[in-house]
Amino acid sequence: MESTTKPWQQLNQLIADESHGELQDYLDKLSHQDLVHALFRMAPEEQQALLSALTPESAADVLEELPDVHAAALLEDLPAFEAATIVMELPSDDAADVLAELDTQDAEQILGHMDADDAAEARELIAYDEDVAGGLMMTEFLKYTESMLVREVLADMRRHADEYALYNVQYLYVTDANERLLGILRARDLVLAQPDERIGDLTRPAESVSPTTPLEALVDFFEDHELSAIPVADTLGRLLGVVRRRAVYDTVAEHAEEDRLKAQGIIGGEEFRSMPSLLRSRRRLTWLSLNIGLNIIAASIIALYQDTLAAVIALAVFLPIVSDMSGCSGNQAVAVSLRELTLGIVQPMDVFRVWLKEASVGLINGLALGSLLGAAAWLWQGNGYLGLVVGGALALNTVVAVSIGGTVPLFLKALKIDPAVAAGPILTTVTDMCGFFFVLAFATSMLPLLQT
Amino acid sequence: MESTTKPWQQLNQLIADESHGELQDYLDKLSHQDLVHALFRMAPEEQQALLSALTPESAADVLEELPDVHAAALLEDLPAFEAATIVMELPSDDAADVLAELDTQDAEQILGHMDADDAAEARELIAYDEDVAGGLMMTEFLKYTESMLVREVLADMRRHADEYALYNVQYLYVTDANERLLGILRARDLVLAQPDERIGDLTRPAESVSPTTPLEALVDFFEDHELSAIPVADTLGRLLGVVRRRAVYDTVAEHAEEDRLKAQGIIGGEEFRSMPSLLRSRRRLTWLSLNIGLNIIAASIIALYQDTLAAVIALAVFLPIVSDMSGCSGNQAVAVSLRELTLGIVQPMDVFRVWLKEASVGLINGLALGSLLGAAAWLWQGNGYLGLVVGGALALNTVVAVSIGGTVPLFLKALKIDPAVAAGPILTTVTDMCGFFFVLAFATSMLPLLQT
Repeated sequence: MESTTKPWQQLNQLIADESHGELQDYLDKLSHQDLVHALFRMAPEEQQALLSALTPESAADVLEELPDVHAAALLEDLPAFEAATIVMELPSDDAADVLAELDTQDAEQILGHMDADDAAEARELIAYDEDVAGGLMMTEFLKYTESMLVREVLADMRRHADEYALYNVQYLYVTDANERLLGILRARDLVLAQPDERIGDLTRPAESVSPTTPLEALVDFFEDHELSAIPVADTLGRLLGVVRRRAVYDTVAEHAEEDRLKAQGIIGGEEFRSMPSLLRSRRRLTWLSLNIGLNIIAASIIALYQDTLAAVIALAVFLPIVSDMSGCSGNQAVAVSLRELTLGIVQPMDVFRVWLKEASVGLINGLALGSLLGAAAWLWQGNGYLGLVVGGALALNTVVAVSIGGTVPLFLKALKIDPAVAAGPILTTVTDMCGFFFVLAFATSMLPLLQT
Repeated sequence: MESTTKPWQQLNQLIADESHGELQDYLDKLSHQDLVHALFRMAPEEQQALLSALTPESAADVLEELPDVHAAALLEDLPAFEAATIVMELPSDDAADVLAELDTQDAEQILGHMDADDAAEARELIAYDEDVAGGLMMTEFLKYTESMLVREVLADMRRHADEYALYNVQYLYVTDANERLLGILRARDLVLAQPDERIGDLTRPAESVSPTTPLEALVDFFEDHELSAIPVADTLGRLLGVVRRRAVYDTVAEHAEEDRLKAQGIIGGEEFRSMPSLLRSRRRLTWLSLNIGLNIIAASIIALYQDTLAAVIALAVFLPIVSDMSGCSGNQAVAVSLRELTLGIVQPMDVFRVWLKEASVGLINGLALGSLLGAAAWLWQGNGYLGLVVGGALALNTVVAVSIGGTVPLFLKALKIDPAVAAGPILTTVTDMCGFFFVLAFATSMLPLLQT
């Protein structure tokens, strides 16, 4: 029987039974995927009951698995002192991310219940933009002065083994007497050293970044270096924190996911179906309303040619096809440009080269698609000129669509507008207008031939 | 003057001058982004000249920065013995990835020029599917028998420090006398151990995976564990290789990028503008041709109502708007479902809950968008009934579109069809047909009122 009980039902049962030990055991057995899925199946009150039933350490482990907005929403509804005990168990970079998602007032209440040190640290991290080194760094790291001996460092590490478990102990950071970062000492170098060596003599110079270094530069750094963390230092060279490779990659992945939603016009790039319907509706509707305006403008081209349409009513069948197919071709070019921008293969200055490459593909595909559609129109209405009009319009508009789709992301990038968000609506509006115009203008110019 | 010379021009100059030392220095100074961009700006012959000018080690470093298909294309055109010296300098997991992208014949020629050991290893790795642990693992790792002493291990590590530089030396793998994996020994534990301890006593039990473990399970593992690598063992428990966290994340990122292209119907999810136009055209055209067929089917609904259209020609303006707006609304629901599937928040069995959530948002947005479009129609033609027809049709079709957009990805997932690829065309075809039908059927039913 037990195998048919879903994890979220099982969790609810264990919470209802107040069997906290079993609850803990059960959570330990759940995989990451199952835990996240179960949490999203539970009602908000049940999720809170779960967090309250857990030790702060376990509750923090659960929160770490959730997207930041969702973790924040849960903490918001817990009593502030309870939320504070959980937040203090999070690594400092995660704690700051979650607190940053809260309203200032809620965040302040939780900070007020935290230890003074933890709270001060969190405040410092929240002050940074979340996409720069300062916002991504954690403040747990191992720091020793250059004059210390290998044996003293090892003794300290042994003494604090438990506390340091959370830290990134592949690297130790070595400073001078004034707390300025001199470099890193790799754990593996400690392995090979003599107990009486000064660690200053084993230290390798390390690159560091300033707290305002942007995410892109950090991605570049980790692409070029096999290190799993990079130190962050202030202008005086004093060590402020450490950015983990993992924090950088997680943030990049989160942005990529958000871009997918933003590209479909979901404001802020965040939507979970656990959010209230009215909020979800509002986040989607802003962009849809803009889009319907653009659509009406594009379709007004059709209104200008009502007489032609009335004379050859079959044209009305082909207008949505030309509009949709041009959109498809253009979006392919957008997707390739976005990818090449991400990979760094193209840059805004390559606009002419990209256009040439797209135009040649557009010409081939336009001729192929135009022939197909033209043949279909000819067969259906038995009028070759109708085929020529709609096929020619689609062929020409395919070239227009891929030219716009390929180059607009580069222009937007140069203007520092997010191409994933803005390229779609621009593409659709322009290609719709051109497509409707080509079909109807060609038809008007050879109207007598179409009416036979 | 030098600052205005682009990196790719500078590289070409240095190759032309045959100043290999300077070329090497210049490459070392280039960032990852600049190097990749410069390479894609260079003609294929120039790229080959660059690789030939470099030492095999440096050429391998350059190739590691490129997407696998592109690296393979470059190797293909080099003499096989030259390609072989470069491939032997790649980490074994990267070497296998690149060789797997080549035609069997080209790969065999290169393998024929490689050291027997390296070639045998590469053949073994290529035999695995590229998305399972066997295909992702590297065969460079440190393996010691449990009976060895800490001091012996350290001595071996010191002796081979150079060779092991490429290895993942955070972990040593400990086996029994029969080569079966017993567990891992962390470098940091070696730091803290006494020289005469047996490493078997320091070994922690380690999870391992089979060579056929799929990518998703590896992602799950690295989400749940802070480790940077996991050992791969055969059914007898013998250590075959090690999968690095980095290899898993790189593969996931590559798939995400490919999905974006596949979702726009680019076959195989691979296209670079450096590929020949005809090949690029073919990769895009297959899907476009399918799509134009679906479009013609959807538009045939319009053909059924030609009489209604002829009577109220203004309807022709609104058909593309209803089609496009329904597509937008539906694609928002698709994007949210794809994201929730990726995060593991929803699973195929949640179809009814997802539909309920979508329908409520669809109702609100449908009423809002329908009112907007209806008002525009009313104002333009001065006929409130026309507004009712197009507004009502859009409102109803918005509910249809989000219902399909939200649930189809879940059905596709259950059928093991890639939802990112198939959801779009299904959505567009069905919502177009429904949209055209609603507008024209409503109009037909109240035709006398629209003609006044």
